[in-house]
Amino acid sequence: MAPLTPRLVIPIDVKKQPWEQKVPLHNRWHPDIPPVADVTEGELFRVEMVDWTGGRVRDDNSADDIKFLDLTITHYLSGPLRIVDSEGLPASPGDLLAVEICNLGPLPGDEWGYTAIFERENGGGFLTDHFPSARKAIWYFEGIYAYSPQIPGVRFPGLTHPGIVGTAPSIELLNIWNEREKKLAETSPETLKVCEVLHQRPLANLPTPENCLLGKIQKEMAEWHKMANEAARTIPGRENGGNCDIKNLSRGFKVYLPVFVEGANLSTGDMHFSQGDGEVSFCGAIEMSGFLELKCEIIRGGMKEYLTPVGPTPLHVNPIFEIGPVEPHFSEWLVFEGISVDEYGKQHFLDASVAYKRAVLNAIEYLSKFGYSKEQAYLLLSCCPCEGRISGIVDSPNAVTTLAIPTAIFDQDIKPKRLSGRPLRGPKLRRLPDLLSCSNSEHLPVTQGQSGTREP
Amino acid sequence: MAPLTPRLVIPIDVKKQPWEQKVPLHNRWHPDIPPVADVTEGELFRVEMVDWTGGRVRDDNSADDIKFLDLTITHYLSGPLRIVDSEGLPASPGDLLAVEICNLGPLPGDEWGYTAIFERENGGGFLTDHFPSARKAIWYFEGIYAYSPQIPGVRFPGLTHPGIVGTAPSIELLNIWNEREKKLAETSPETLKVCEVLHQRPLANLPTPENCLLGKIQKEMAEWHKMANEAARTIPGRENGGNCDIKNLSRGFKVYLPVFVEGANLSTGDMHFSQGDGEVSFCGAIEMSGFLELKCEIIRGGMKEYLTPVGPTPLHVNPIFEIGPVEPHFSEWLVFEGISVDEYGKQHFLDASVAYKRAVLNAIEYLSKFGYSKEQAYLLLSCCPCEGRISGIVDSPNAVTTLAIPTAIFDQDIKPKRLSGRPLRGPKLRRLPDLLSCSNSEHLPVTQGQSGTREP
Amino acid sequence: MAPLTPRLVIPIDVKKQPWEQKVPLHNRWHPDIPPVADVTEGELFRVEMVDWTGGRVRDDNSADDIKFLDLTITHYLSGPLRIVDSEGLPASPGDLLAVEICNLGPLPGDEWGYTAIFERENGGGFLTDHFPSARKAIWYFEGIYAYSPQIPGVRFPGLTHPGIVGTAPSIELLNIWNEREKKLAETSPETLKVCEVLHQRPLANLPTPENCLLGKIQKEMAEWHKMANEAARTIPGRENGGNCDIKNLSRGFKVYLPVFVEGANLSTGDMHFSQGDGEVSFCGAIEMSGFLELKCEIIRGGMKEYLTPVGPTPLHVNPIFEIGPVEPHFSEWLVFEGISVDEYGKQHFLDASVAYKRAVLNAIEYLSKFGYSKEQAYLLLSCCPCEGRISGIVDSPNAVTTLAIPTAIFDQDIKPKRLSGRPLRGPKLRRLPDLLSCSNSEHLPVTQGQSGTREP
Amino acid sequence: MAPLTPRLVIPIDVKKQPWEQKVPLHNRWHPDIPPVADVTEGELFRVEMVDWTGGRVRDDNSADDIKFLDLTITHYLSGPLRIVDSEGLPASPGDLLAVEICNLGPLPGDEWGYTAIFERENGGGFLTDHFPSARKAIWYFEGIYAYSPQIPGVRFPGLTHPGIVGTAPSIELLNIWNEREKKLAETSPETLKVCEVLHQRPLANLPTPENCLLGKIQKEMAEWHKMANEAARTIPGRENGGNCDIKNLSRGFKVYLPVFVEGANLSTGDMHFSQGDGEVSFCGAIEMSGFLELKCEIIRGGMKEYLTPVGPTPLHVNPIFEIGPVEPHFSEWLVFEGISVDEYGKQHFLDASVAYKRAVLNAIEYLSKFGYSKEQAYLLLSCCPCEGRISGIVDSPNAVTTLAIPTAIFDQDIKPKRLSGRPLRGPKLRRLPDLLSCSNSEHLPVTQGQSGTREP
Repeated sequence: MAPLTPRLVIPIDVKKQPWEQKVPLHNRWHPDIPPVADVTEGELFRVEMVDWTGGRVRDDNSADDIKFLDLTITHYLSGPLRIVDSEGLPASPGDLLAVEICNLGPLPGDEWGYTAIFERENGGGFLTDHFPSARKAIWYFEGIYAYSPQIPGVRFPGLTHPGIVGTAPSIELLNIWNEREKKLAETSPETLKVCEVLHQRPLANLPTPENCLLGKIQKEMAEWHKMANEAARTIPGRENGGNCDIKNLSRGFKVYLPVFVEGANLSTGDMHFSQGDGEVSFCGAIEMSGFLELKCEIIRGGMKEYLTPVGPTPLHVNPIFEIGPVEPHFSEWLVFEGISVDEYGKQHFLDASVAYKRAVLNAIEYLSKFGYSKEQAYLLLSCCPCEGRISGIVDSPNAVTTLAIPTAIFDQDIKPKRLSGRPLRGPKLRRLPDLLSCSNSEHLPVTQGQSGTREP
Repeated sequence: MAPLTPRLVIPIDVKKQPWEQKVPLHNRWHPDIPPVADVTEGELFRVEMVDWTGGRVRDDNSADDIKFLDLTITHYLSGPLRIVDSEGLPASPGDLLAVEICNLGPLPGDEWGYTAIFERENGGGFLTDHFPSARKAIWYFEGIYAYSPQIPGVRFPGLTHPGIVGTAPSIELLNIWNEREKKLAETSPETLKVCEVLHQRPLANLPTPENCLLGKIQKEMAEWHKMANEAARTIPGRENGGNCDIKNLSRGFKVYLPVFVEGANLSTGDMHFSQGDGEVSFCGAIEMSGFLELKCEIIRGGMKEYLTPVGPTPLHVNPIFEIGPVEPHFSEWLVFEGISVDEYGKQHFLDASVAYKRAVLNAIEYLSKFGYSKEQAYLLLSCCPCEGRISGIVDSPNAVTTLAIPTAIFDQDIKPKRLSGRPLRGPKLRRLPDLLSCSNSEHLPVTQGQSGTREP
Repeated sequence: MAPLTPRLVIPIDVKKQPWEQKVPLHNRWHPDIPPVADVTEGELFRVEMVDWTGGRVRDDNSADDIKFLDLTITHYLSGPLRIVDSEGLPASPGDLLAVEICNLGPLPGDEWGYTAIFERENGGGFLTDHFPSARKAIWYFEGIYAYSPQIPGVRFPGLTHPGIVGTAPSIELLNIWNEREKKLAETSPETLKVCEVLHQRPLANLPTPENCLLGKIQKEMAEWHKMANEAARTIPGRENGGNCDIKNLSRGFKVYLPVFVEGANLSTGDMHFSQGDGEVSFCGAIEMSGFLELKCEIIRGGMKEYLTPVGPTPLHVNPIFEIGPVEPHFSEWLVFEGISVDEYGKQHFLDASVAYKRAVLNAIEYLSKFGYSKEQAYLLLSCCPCEGRISGIVDSPNAVTTLAIPTAIFDQDIKPKRLSGRPLRGPKLRRLPDLLSCSNSEHLPVTQGQSGTREP
Repeated sequence: MAPLTPRLVIPIDVKKQPWEQKVPLHNRWHPDIPPVADVTEGELFRVEMVDWTGGRVRDDNSADDIKFLDLTITHYLSGPLRIVDSEGLPASPGDLLAVEICNLGPLPGDEWGYTAIFERENGGGFLTDHFPSARKAIWYFEGIYAYSPQIPGVRFPGLTHPGIVGTAPSIELLNIWNEREKKLAETSPETLKVCEVLHQRPLANLPTPENCLLGKIQKEMAEWHKMANEAARTIPGRENGGNCDIKNLSRGFKVYLPVFVEGANLSTGDMHFSQGDGEVSFCGAIEMSGFLELKCEIIRGGMKEYLTPVGPTPLHVNPIFEIGPVEPHFSEWLVFEGISVDEYGKQHFLDASVAYKRAVLNAIEYLSKFGYSKEQAYLLLSCCPCEGRISGIVDSPNAVTTLAIPTAIFDQDIKPKRLSGRPLRGPKLRRLPDLLSCSNSEHLPVTQGQSGTREP
């Protein structure tokens, strides 16, 4: 008789603070954060996780928690786990660690999530010049489905996944990260706009001891300060996987992670009930607490065999993935296109980001014809299972991208259709209410299109 | 009894030159190119097309034709067609023109195509710094499948589509295009690198009378010169659709095009047997001659109802699409990730292009483990039905993109797997022969990774 | 340079009669029908086919042609083709012949089809007791789509396939067929009802020289009479494949056929633009003329290796299939269930046919709520891409079957929904016109349900 | 704030016997079994269930529990639940009850299942003449996947579903059931063979007080005896849904059940981790305990509007279904065909059951080439996500059915391929061990094919 149930290696109590959990969490990447447990390859085990903010965002009626969220706390990760083979030998640098997601979901009793627009002055998002003020929507789960009182008329099956899965960096890799990101942070922000917009500051999130949590290394311990000052932030995805936010990382998914330290030191977190490609509003996924059921396999020497570095050192690699067999399945998609001409009409040169921004703006404008506010549409495109594709990146001067939305998530037909009578009348559904806003929301200046047809 | 067969409105004889065709072709966008035929909405009609170069690239043993291809000839388009409603009233500016692709394919007797790397000095491609020399592969079609003697071991069903479908611009829109692209072309090229690479010149392809073909407006006609000097090139996709290179524009696909001139003046061309997202090698699709069977519907006033402009004028819009029901169907995908750190290890700020470049480079390196040369892999990723997605565009400083390859196109298992013995041995298949090269290929300098593990 | 185009081995001129075609057709199975051409394995070749009746059914306004159709003429097949390997050695008994369908479709200029209810007195169908009179619908093709003036409000992509693909039987196998079918035909029809209905006569279609066509063996030749008296009819599917009517036999499909005679002697015919599982109205597919582009491979000794006989001789085998990658793709299905209780309320014992009949009847009744006549619904379920599944065959006494209909083929929402007001009102769409009927249709008695709620 | 968690209305403790559960279970259908709880439409609620035998089959090394299982105990159902609308009014006869499966799975801590061949003398199965002896395989779950030590080399994602979901019959409907099944049971078994085999006795499972469990109606209560003698067995699916064993009844599935009694009285049970179409070995699904998360909607008057009876009374209806969006997704299928000629070579008349039996036998023989015993293959086809389709039911005398197996569930390539050398050698993998058998297994006589090539 085989063991019937995945072994729970990291339990979470969502009523407790992140730093009060039985197995200590961490919110930085560092090779010296000690493993909290051993896992044997082939074993099925369960890891539970708080949401990325460890409970700071609440199921209430205001977006104040979003507006004032201190980003130095993020992301709370479960782990690290030391992976050993059947003979007890740990994974070694140069191996590949295959991690299969056998199952996942919200934590029982905590079946809800949120998606939000970050305030321009506190992180912002991809369209922060258009949507500078903090907003929030709450989503409730009905098994595989999510719905939101703040975004009526949609309900969709989640392509649930962890935003973060990664191995610990070696000290060499950590140094590479810190160096290159420091260099970037030191550049003049003027040269580092995305789509000519200064939308996120700081440019890079450098190490900071503020709110730093290092698992078993407690603040009072000798090594804490040194580690806290050099441990990498979890915001961006990097060579170790990390916050890659690949929406397809769901049930049955397999990721092949490079191993940089003995034991691999696997950590996970940032569960998303659902996310659209790009996660455009920044906190754009449906964020939640949750669990993963995982199985690992060590491919000895696999890094050398399968991952050729693209960069100056053997550490400049990226994980490989295989998509699982039970993704939600849509057959009808409405597709919006964007080219690299910005909303001021300016021509950019093969800039996929500008093109994607325009595709998203086109989709938002379109959905606003069907009764949604533009902010509702923006959030919806951040979290519903939409696909963002790079269609053309070679035809000067226009990059072309597309954003494809599954039409089945709406309770109305959103496809264009012949209008019946005269005078011409568009779809004028009224959908209430709107997103949650802040208690005293200031009016931040907004990027407006100049077209005469644009609504005020 | 209904008419049984789509009406052939534009026939092509591939043995003739583009300028010798019975119905004259054009290779520029201009409102004053006269329609070559009328089509009534609801009617099923057939349009045939030469390949984008009008037969300049041949099924032979050399890439010389690619190396020396004069890009001012491209793309040869069939049309324009004037679309009228059942009462004979033409489509009007402000309408939407819904065009459904009921069927498409190669021209009978011409069932082959090619895909190529453009020489760095003549257009280049997305990875031109790595692959600067002209190369060519020939593909033969077996019904829905394509295979290439130059890229052995793969065979895949085509997601066949026209690279170009568009309506004629109004003179106002044409002026907007010319102005913004001229401004771009006048910028210092130093500021317009993609991924820090100067890979295509000119930056924009401005109007030129050289090799200009204007349909019924013959060179000796009075208006030819003025038109030729202002008619837009067909290289980039723009507000009218055009060269959007969306690989899913296949059987059953529907595109809603804005109408800018009376009659809509629909043109199509640049047939692709198959293309990967991004079409990374520039001439990366499997280029061919072909036919479309189309059906149009006019949505009166639809532009105003459905397309909100994003930009300074009501003309700053983009088409909308619906995906068809018979796309090839894959269930297993191997996914490569890229982050916005370039191959020199430099950190870029949320740059989706850099991230996509790295994803493509990662995939090329990986495939080269399975017996392919890197150039073969580059071409394969340009033309096989792979998906390029923008996964994360908000987590400073790294944009994250993915490139997903359907594993079923290979005759071997390309998934990573545990290696059996010692010493460690990777996959060492030998696949011959290689791509077609040029008669006297110079050795252009190549961007090399600096990693010690990189092969020479 | 490879040959660019599939070699046309059997051309069809639809304006000529079946017996006037350039390459002679056949409508019987017999080992001694001589091959009309040789095909080499690996070669891409094209076979054209008349529709199963060779043009007897016309695109006109009456079902008279159906009512009086002489079934001894069917099915007109193209072939046989002798398959040889690259060294010229023919396929041999005991080999497997892998046949790949690379492409297929209607014949250019003949893009239409028909589907029909056969008269009870002339073949009938699965529900002949409910629908005893001949009816016909014409379908027109728009590329991948079909629509019918007689069944308004539906349009669907075809899962186009040949109803018949098979190899020639050996004389031993032919004898087995004739013997077992003769035995059946001699049984009292009373014991051979399907669902207690005597719906088709004769019970088996035994050899008959009437209208027999034997390819190159002309009627005046010595061997004709003997062969005509023993050649098997093409109506049922058998060990050689034949009329298996598997709707998924479409683009990219591969069938592994047993080889019984030297050369394999491959024949094909009975093209269907589309068919539902079961083809319930007998002439239920959308019947048409058409073409196949095929590729063969000989697996030497494959019959012994892969096909274990289930029956008294080594000849009692069946083909194996692989489904292709471009089937139409639906994500929403409405499913009807049937159990083995008949429409008189009688309990049958694990009878899958009774259960499927009830599922089909349930679906017909349901669709008739949405404005269709029951005969329209019957024909639609015969030809649209619906799936008929055996869900349970072990739970005494009820077999359970399901019939799943893709909802996207309708231009209205056919899912059950909450009714808004009072008094309760169902969907009462009116859809006109109805199917084509016969010039002087007699009133054949119909099986009626006895329920009080059943409409007259 | 909405309630976060589905309300648990029926908890199960798998360590207790079925009759010891906190909320009493039942194993019969009867209108007078009192509801155990009320559920409001729109509410998300959770129902837990024992496996169909209530724990009689164990995760041990013998099939004795299968061999001697007393079928009068089955199936243990959870319910009935009384469904009321938001105003507290119960569902009424004539309404439709829409039940959506929002989520489901095994019970935490009980993540295993079993699949079995029933002894011919105790129920048997579809191929009981070939496989007369009891056998058992244990399956363990790894999240979405199942694997079995007894059937090595396969692992597949479950299309998990309840075998049984149904409403209570009215007394009129119950009488109809008992009458028609009694009539059947009284027929001579000789006339009620399936495929000429007497494989299950009794022919129908008539009411019996033996092991009868009636929920809140305890054995000592006055009405128990009357009810126990008339309550219908749960073995077959019927008008109320019940044991329909439709494998697609999974996450996101919606079933529209007719309401026959006030409150609808909804019951569920018989959870399957996975099942193949037909569930051919009788206990062929992967049987387990489990939970459902459900949501109900009452469609007032919907039975009359949407369910036209096919039979003598308004009660002769069947449920309607909609398939959910997250079914496991396979793109490659190997398909086996069967025609209505039995394994003795006898021709049957359009008998779908005979045809399906032959398709299953063909598939079993084929899989046995790849190292499986025939009994392993039989069980595998009962429980893996294979599809059984009725392809042709009208071409006298052969019905044609197909059985399609997704090839991705195997760890080897099971497609036919060209054999390399001489002498011809087939696949000769050795896969051990075999299924669990009984302590003292007698040798029951087996139906053998007579072909010379058949292995002894």
